[in-house]
Parts: sequence; structure tokens; C-alpha cells
Amino acid sequence: MSALDPDLARRLKRNADGLVCAVVVEHTTSAVLMVAWMDDEALHRTLTTRRATYFSRSKGRLWVKGETSGHTQYVREVRLDCDADTLLVRVEQTGPACHTGTTTCFDTDERLLLADPADV
Amino acid sequence: MSALDPDLARRLKRNADGLVCAVVVEHTTSAVLMVAWMDDEALHRTLTTRRATYFSRSKGRLWVKGETSGHTQYVREVRLDCDADTLLVRVEQTGPACHTGTTTCFDTDERLLLADPADV
Repeated sequence: MSALDPDLARRLKRNADGLVCAVVVEHTTSAVLMVAWMDDEALHRTLTTRRATYFSRSKGRLWVKGETSGHTQYVREVRLDCDADTLLVRVEQTGPACHTGTTTCFDTDERLLLADPADV
Repeated sequence: MSALDPDLARRLKRNADGLVCAVVVEHTTSAVLMVAWMDDEALHRTLTTRRATYFSRSKGRLWVKGETSGHTQYVREVRLDCDADTLLVRVEQTGPACHTGTTTCFDTDERLLLADPADV
């Protein structure tokens, strides 16, 4: 049983695993850092501690972002989307957000579709 | 069977429903517009037509964003994340991205956590 505010808990639309998607954005640059998942308790802890806390689908438990790496996220704002199944989390990121050491999880060389020639 | 490039198809890590998460960002402002889902065929069509195409979990079929509203998305860039289970899609959005008529799906008054007093 989570301590999440009951009004908020009533509104959340969770997936079959009881999770909502969290899109994490760097507060100053607006760069999309990563996507993770929250259950009710992760959201409750994120809102009350301002330390971004997710539910790890691989580990099957809560994890505070940066708990081992030190690359924590201080949470500035959390918004719920129109469908109540996705959160937009604005954070101040300490160090790289990605476990591979890059600033964001999308900083691979891997662009599936390059920008238009007009952009270059 | 999708026509998606076999190398890319091999690398994608789909959820139990065969989908990957797509975070959609406005090309010029970097605002997060919405989150949607793609199966292989949706991704193939998005990459080859540059018209953002998703898999609707509620309708159980592909949908071209804006097919009824006219609020289409011209795709400028698609990136895959470090885990190969999430796409970052940069688009030029025509009209509001949200079916409620707002610019983004996160433009509710609903902030679960307000920004720090220091921000105001």
C-alpha cells in the first residue's frame, strides 16, 4: 500500500504492471534525459523527497536515481498528462543521466532518421 | 510482418505487447509534446514517410497522427535510446499536439509538484 495522495492515486492510469511512464527532462536545457517507470510509491517518494525515484522493471524494486552512481536528480516539477498515464518530470541532473556515461540516454550516434538536408 | 529494416528490427526491445515507447518533442522549442507507442510497422512508416505514425493501444491499429484532426507531425529526427526500448522523435507539429486542444499533452493546470520558490 502506497502513501501516495489518494486523490492522485485515484486519477492515475497505470499499465498492467501498475506503472506509469515518466519522461525525465533537464530543467535548464529541456533535453530529454531518459524514460523510466514509477509505481505509486515511487511517485510518492519523488514528490515528497524531490529525489527522483523509479520502479526498476529489471530489478523488481524501487531505485533512487544515482543511489550507486551518485548521478542523482533533484526534482523541480512533475506534471501529469491528459490521459493520466504519463508523467513529465523536470530535474536538475547531477552528472550524466545515462548509465553509459552520456549526458542523456539518447546520445548515441544512432539516428534512425537524419535531420533534413535543409538543417545542415 | 513489418517492412522495418531487419537490422533495426533485431535491435528493438519491445514490451509484452510488441511496442516501443515514443517520446515526441517539438523540433524548434524542444517541448515534450506527447508520448505514444510504435510497433515495427509504425516505426517503418514513420521513418519512410516522415509522417509520425503510432500504434493505438485503445484502437488496436496504426494511426497517422492528425489523420482526423489535421494536426500532423512532420518527422525531423528519430533516435533510439541506450536500451533500445524508447524512441525520441523530433517533429514539426501542425496545430496543437493534444487531442484536448492544448499545445502539448502536459499543458494541464495540473502540476503535482510546483517549482521551487527560488524559480518564481
